[in-house]
Amino acid sequence: MATTGRVTLPLQVGIDAELTELARKLGADAVRNSDGTELPEMAKELVDKVYSTYFPARGDQEFALAHPETLVNQYLCSPRSTAPAEGDLVIDVMEGYFRDQFAPFTDCDVARWWQVIDRTTDEVVDPEKWSTTPEGVVTIKDPQPFHVYTVGFLANQLWDSTQMYNYITNDWHLEPWRVKERPYDVRKNGVWEYAQGALKSWLEEHPEVDVVRFTTFFYHFTLVFNDLGKEKYVDWFGYSASVSIEAMEAFEQEMGYALVAEDFIDEGFYNNAFRSPTPQYLDWIDFQARFVAEKTKGLVDIAHEAGREAMMFLGDNWMGTEPYGPYFEEIGMDAVVGSVGSGATCRMISDIPGVKYTEGRFLPYFFPDVFNDDGDPIGEANESWLQARRAIVRFPLDRMGYGGYPALALKYPAFVERIAEICDEFRSIHEQGGGQHPENSPIRVAIVNAWGKLRTWQTFMVAHALWYKQIYTYLGIIESLSGLPFEIQWLSFDDVRAGALENVDVLINAGVAGTAFSGGAEWLDPELTSAVRAFVANGGGFIGVGEPAAVEHGGAFIQLSDVLGVDRERSQSLSHDRYPTIVEGHPLVADLSGSFDVGESGGDVVTLHPDVKVVAFEKGSVRASINEYGKGVGIYLGGLPYSFENARLLHRAIYLAAGRGEELENGAAWITSDVRTEVAYYPNTNRIMVLNNSKEAVTTTVRGIGRTWEVDLLPMGYKWMDI
Amino acid sequence: MATTGRVTLPLQVGIDAELTELARKLGADAVRNSDGTELPEMAKELVDKVYSTYFPARGDQEFALAHPETLVNQYLCSPRSTAPAEGDLVIDVMEGYFRDQFAPFTDCDVARWWQVIDRTTDEVVDPEKWSTTPEGVVTIKDPQPFHVYTVGFLANQLWDSTQMYNYITNDWHLEPWRVKERPYDVRKNGVWEYAQGALKSWLEEHPEVDVVRFTTFFYHFTLVFNDLGKEKYVDWFGYSASVSIEAMEAFEQEMGYALVAEDFIDEGFYNNAFRSPTPQYLDWIDFQARFVAEKTKGLVDIAHEAGREAMMFLGDNWMGTEPYGPYFEEIGMDAVVGSVGSGATCRMISDIPGVKYTEGRFLPYFFPDVFNDDGDPIGEANESWLQARRAIVRFPLDRMGYGGYPALALKYPAFVERIAEICDEFRSIHEQGGGQHPENSPIRVAIVNAWGKLRTWQTFMVAHALWYKQIYTYLGIIESLSGLPFEIQWLSFDDVRAGALENVDVLINAGVAGTAFSGGAEWLDPELTSAVRAFVANGGGFIGVGEPAAVEHGGAFIQLSDVLGVDRERSQSLSHDRYPTIVEGHPLVADLSGSFDVGESGGDVVTLHPDVKVVAFEKGSVRASINEYGKGVGIYLGGLPYSFENARLLHRAIYLAAGRGEELENGAAWITSDVRTEVAYYPNTNRIMVLNNSKEAVTTTVRGIGRTWEVDLLPMGYKWMDI
Repeated sequence: MATTGRVTLPLQVGIDAELTELARKLGADAVRNSDGTELPEMAKELVDKVYSTYFPARGDQEFALAHPETLVNQYLCSPRSTAPAEGDLVIDVMEGYFRDQFAPFTDCDVARWWQVIDRTTDEVVDPEKWSTTPEGVVTIKDPQPFHVYTVGFLANQLWDSTQMYNYITNDWHLEPWRVKERPYDVRKNGVWEYAQGALKSWLEEHPEVDVVRFTTFFYHFTLVFNDLGKEKYVDWFGYSASVSIEAMEAFEQEMGYALVAEDFIDEGFYNNAFRSPTPQYLDWIDFQARFVAEKTKGLVDIAHEAGREAMMFLGDNWMGTEPYGPYFEEIGMDAVVGSVGSGATCRMISDIPGVKYTEGRFLPYFFPDVFNDDGDPIGEANESWLQARRAIVRFPLDRMGYGGYPALALKYPAFVERIAEICDEFRSIHEQGGGQHPENSPIRVAIVNAWGKLRTWQTFMVAHALWYKQIYTYLGIIESLSGLPFEIQWLSFDDVRAGALENVDVLINAGVAGTAFSGGAEWLDPELTSAVRAFVANGGGFIGVGEPAAVEHGGAFIQLSDVLGVDRERSQSLSHDRYPTIVEGHPLVADLSGSFDVGESGGDVVTLHPDVKVVAFEKGSVRASINEYGKGVGIYLGGLPYSFENARLLHRAIYLAAGRGEELENGAAWITSDVRTEVAYYPNTNRIMVLNNSKEAVTTTVRGIGRTWEVDLLPMGYKWMDI
Repeated sequence: MATTGRVTLPLQVGIDAELTELARKLGADAVRNSDGTELPEMAKELVDKVYSTYFPARGDQEFALAHPETLVNQYLCSPRSTAPAEGDLVIDVMEGYFRDQFAPFTDCDVARWWQVIDRTTDEVVDPEKWSTTPEGVVTIKDPQPFHVYTVGFLANQLWDSTQMYNYITNDWHLEPWRVKERPYDVRKNGVWEYAQGALKSWLEEHPEVDVVRFTTFFYHFTLVFNDLGKEKYVDWFGYSASVSIEAMEAFEQEMGYALVAEDFIDEGFYNNAFRSPTPQYLDWIDFQARFVAEKTKGLVDIAHEAGREAMMFLGDNWMGTEPYGPYFEEIGMDAVVGSVGSGATCRMISDIPGVKYTEGRFLPYFFPDVFNDDGDPIGEANESWLQARRAIVRFPLDRMGYGGYPALALKYPAFVERIAEICDEFRSIHEQGGGQHPENSPIRVAIVNAWGKLRTWQTFMVAHALWYKQIYTYLGIIESLSGLPFEIQWLSFDDVRAGALENVDVLINAGVAGTAFSGGAEWLDPELTSAVRAFVANGGGFIGVGEPAAVEHGGAFIQLSDVLGVDRERSQSLSHDRYPTIVEGHPLVADLSGSFDVGESGGDVVTLHPDVKVVAFEKGSVRASINEYGKGVGIYLGGLPYSFENARLLHRAIYLAAGRGEELENGAAWITSDVRTEVAYYPNTNRIMVLNNSKEAVTTTVRGIGRTWEVDLLPMGYKWMDI
C-alpha cells in the first residue's frame, strides 16, 4: 500500500523541521502556500510539486493604488426607506454598509447608472426628481407619502472580499505591514495588459513553482459586509461584483439591449442563487463568463508557455470560470482544487470534466477558530471525512489536501495522527479500486431546476457545506446522492422542454416554491408540465420534495399535483375534507427508524384522492406518499435533510420511482441491511467495498448479485472484499 | 338569586314527568323541539314560552315531491382530470359526489350554464368541443394532451344538507317513516306564494307556539357529501347552494352583467371564507342577501301578524340573513339563537344588533356521539362553558339553552347537575351585573380583513368552535378578544381606505398570506398601505399576526414590513445575514410561562434592522417583536392559538401597541396577576367580577384604579366583589 502521494500540504515559513516530519507523516507529494503566507525556501526539496497561490485581480497593490480608476464596481441597494407624510426623502445609500469595503461611485452619469425605485408602485423615479451628493446621500423631491423607496447604486470595491474576510478573521490588523488589498478590474484601462506581463514576470521570478494555483481570477463572488464589519450579504454564485460601466456598455453593444441598475439590484435580492433567474441575468452570466473564460485562457496559456501547470481554486474570484459552464473546457485548466466539507462538495470537485486532476481541500482549516481549547479539530475532520468518503468512493477526487497554518495543527498531535490515517485511507481507495469507479445502478436520475448543468452539485448550496436554515431540508437530497449508485444529470427547465427526459428514468424536483430550485413560474408553462406528465405517464418516475413544481395557478399549488396525487394546503381549500389512505410499513420507508425527518417540511400537504398511498403522515400532513400515474410513479417527500435513514429513503425512492422496487428485495440490486453502511461494487475486479459511515461498530448484511454477505465493520471503518 | 328564567330546554315526547323535573332543575322558562322531534302536549303548561322549529325551505315534503322543478340548485366542480396523450377526455362530473344528495342538472342550456375549463391554460373550452350525457358524463373532444380539465356543472340538490347530516348522524335510516327531505327554492315558480300560505296555516294550527324558531330560511350553507356519504366540502359561510338559473338571470337584469359557472366554481375553491372574494362574488352575496331579507321579512311579518315572535337560528339555511349584514335589521327579527362552543361563537350571537334578545345553544348537544360510554359530556360542558363565560361576562347573551334529546341527557344525572349549576351561574351574571356591561379599556381595537363587519366575530371561523388545522393559530385572536375589555370594530379594506382608522387605536391584521383574512393582493394597493402607515406614524398601533399584509411585491413579502420591522423569509433572501436584537423579559411576554406557543406559526420571520426588539425567538425565527414606527408601534406575533397565556399576551400587545403599556404596570388598567384569571369592572355598581377560567383553584392579585386585591378562586370559580 502506497504511503505517499495524492496529498498537498500547506506550508509556512520558520518551521522547516516540523514540516518535513509532517509531510512524511501525511505522505504529502505537493505543497502550497495560503493567502497571506509565503512558501519557505525548502518547499522544493520536500516534495515533487510546489503550488503557489496567485491573485490576478489583487496580487499587486502597488498597481492597484496607482490605478484607482480600475477598482472593481458593484451594484448595491440602499436601505428600504419610507417617505414621510410630507417633504423630501433623504437616503444615505451607504447606511448599513462597510465603508472600508465600499464607496458610492458618483463620478459617472448617475442618472444613467443609478436608479431610484418606488417599491410600493414598482415605478422608476425620474432622475430629474432626485440627486445625490458625492458621498451618496440621495434626496428624493416630493416623494409619494408613505411609499417605500430604494436607491440602486454603483459602488467602488475598496477591498477584496476574501482578503477582507481573512484579514478580519485572522486579526491581521495586528500585523501593521498588512495592506487592505484593492481589487482591479481586468476590463478596465490597462489592467489586462498589466496582468499578462505581471504573470510572466512572476513566473520568471518563481522557477520553483510547478503549479500556479490561481486564487482565482477576476471577479469575486458577492460578499458584502455591514457597518460593523460583519457579513451582511453573501452569495457564492453571485455576479454582483462583476459589474462596471465598461462591462455594461460592452454588454449593450454585444447583446443589443441595455441593462439598468435594477437588473442587478433585483428588488434587493441581487439575483441570488435562490431567485428564479431573469433572462437578463442569464444573459449577463453568459456574457461575463465568456469574457472571463477568454481572459483566463490567456493567463493559463502564459503558465503553460512557462512550463507550469495551471490550477484553479474553485471559489473566491471564480465568477465566470464555473467548471460546469459552457466555456470552462476551452480554458485548458489543468486542475481544480476546492474546499470539501461533505459528499456534495466533494462531487462538485471530483465530477469536473476536462481537467487532468482534481483536488479537495479538507476541513478543518488550520485556523485559530477551530484549533483552540474549545475547538474539536478531530471531530470536524472525522465528520467531514465520513461525509466526503462515501462520495469519494463513488467518484474519487484525484488528490486531497489541507489549508491554513501547519504550525497550528502541529500543536495537536492526535489531530495529525488522525489526518495521517485519513490520507492513507484516501490513497487506499484509489489503489484498491484499481482506477475504476464502482458500478452504478442502471437507473438514470436527473435533477431539474433553473440552473441545470451550470450548477452541477451546487443545488441548494451556499458554498462549503454549512448548515443553513431553509436549505438543509433540501441539501440532503444531493448530499445523499453524492454517495448513492446513480448517474445524475442536472437539467434546466429548458433542457426538459427540449426533450432531455428521453434519457432519464427518474426526475427530481425539489425546494421551496418560487425559488430557482423548485422553479416558480416556470411551471406555468404547459409545455413543461406536459413534458413531465408525458414522461411519467409513459413509465418514468417523478420525485417531488418539499414544494415541487409549485406555483399558485388554476386551482392547484403543486402544478404536478395530478402526478403526485397531493397538493399543498395554503388555507385556500381548508373547507375540503381529506381522507388520506395511510399505508403502514411500505417498502419506501422500510429503513426509517421512527418517524421521517423532513426538516422544515413542505408545509401542510394533503391527498387529492384515495388512491394515493400515504406512507408517512404527521400532524395531519402527508410527509411521504406514492401515486401511480399512467405507467409511472409520483413520489412526494416533505423534505430530505441528510441522515443515514434519509439517504436510504432516497435510494429506495429512486428504485420505486423507476418501477424497480422489487430489485431491492430480491437481491438484484446492491444494498446493505444497516442504513449506516453502504456498499460499492467494482465489476472489473469483482470486489466490493463496504463502508461504515457511522462512529459505531456495525455488523451489516450486504446483498447483491443474488448473494449475501455478513460484514463486521469498525467505527468509521470499511472493508474491501473479493467476491 | 333567581333560580328560574333565561333557559330554554329541548323537549321530546313520551317522558313528560322527567321533563317537568328537568325543567325545574335547570330553571327553564322556555321549551323547544329539535329537527326531527315533536313538541309534547304538556309543553305549554311547563313554561312561559314555547318555541317551535319551522323549516320554510323543506318543511313540506308533499309540496317538494309534487314540485321537483323547484329543487334548489348548486354549482359543483368535477374532479380535476388530466387529458390523455391522445383521444378524448371523458369526465364523470359526479365522480366523488353523493348521488343521494345531488344530480347533475342537464335539462337546461348546458352550453350557457356549465363550463369546461382547461386549468393548465385557464382557458374556457368552447362548448362546441364538449358534450354531456343526461347523467353528467362529459366528453371533451381532442383536448390538449396532459392538460388538466374541470367541468363546472349545475346540480339539483336532492336532499337538504342539514337534514341529511342529522339523518346520517342519528341513524334515521333505522326509522323507516323518515323521508329524505328535499329543499325547494323560494325563487322558483309558486314557492313563495306557497311558503306564505303554509306559514299562515301552520300558525293557525299551532296556537301553542309563542316563538316561531325559523331553522332557518331559504338557502343552506355549502355542505357537500362524498360518494361514501361523508362530508366532502363544508363552508358555513358559502353561497354555493343559493344558485339557480332564475337567480342568475335576475342578477344579470339587476346588476347589468352576467355570471358564469366559474364565478361560483372559483377554481374549485367555491369562494370559501378563506378566499379573497372577487367583486362578482361580493355582488352575488349582496344580491342574494337583499332578496332573502325581503322574503324573510315577509315571513316574519306573517308571524308578527299572528301575534308570535320570530326567532332565527343562526346556521343551516341562513345564507342571506347574516345578522351583521346590511339588510338584517330591516327584517324585524325578534331574536337570534345560535350554537355556542367558545367565547367567539358566544360574542357572534350576543353582539347582534337590532334584535330584542339573543340565545346561545350550549354544547354538548344531547346526541349519541357524546352521550355514550366513551364520551365526556361533563367535560365538554365545562370546556365550552369556561370559554364562553368570559365572553358572556363581557357582553352577555340574554338566554341560553341546550339541544338534542333530553332523554339521553337524563341518563347522566351528574351531567344534569352540572348544567343546572351552569344555568344558575348564567342567571347570576345577569343579576349581579345589574344589566350593565363591564367597562372596556379606552383603547379602540379594529380587525381588518376582506369581510369586515359582515362577518363580525366570524374571522378564521369554520362554524361552531371546532379545532381546525391552519385556523386555530389565528382563531385564538378573536377567542382571546371575546373576553378582553376592548371595543372591537370589524373593518374591511375598503373601510380602511375610506378613513375608518380615524376611530381606531390599534389595528390587527392576521392570517395566512393570500387569504381573505390576511388580505392577499389588497396590500398591493398603495392607498391601503399608505393609510396604515400614516395611521401608525401618527401614533396608532399595528399588530400583525402570522402573515399579515403579505403578498410578494417589490422586494418584500409583508408589505408593511417597514412598520413591523420584520419580514417573512421565503428562501429569496437567505443570502442576507440577520442580526436580530433579542430582548429578554420584555413586558409584552411577561406573562408567558415558557416559550410562546405560536401554533403553526407564520413561518421563518427575520428582522430587517437592529432597532426591532425581538421578544420571542425560536429556531432562528422571530416569534414576537416590537418596532417603533414614527409615533406609533408595530407588533409582530407569529400566531396566537387560544390559551390563557396567549389571551394575556394579546391583552398586553394591545396596550403596548396603543402606547399605553405603562398602565398595565402602574395599576391604571385593570389586570390580574394570574393569567388563568380575568377581571371585569362594573363602574355603575362599583363592583368587579373575578373569573377563574381554569379547572384549578387559583389565588390571584387583581389590580385596577390604582388598588390591588388578593382573591382566592375555586376551580372554574368566580367572585363578585364590591370595591
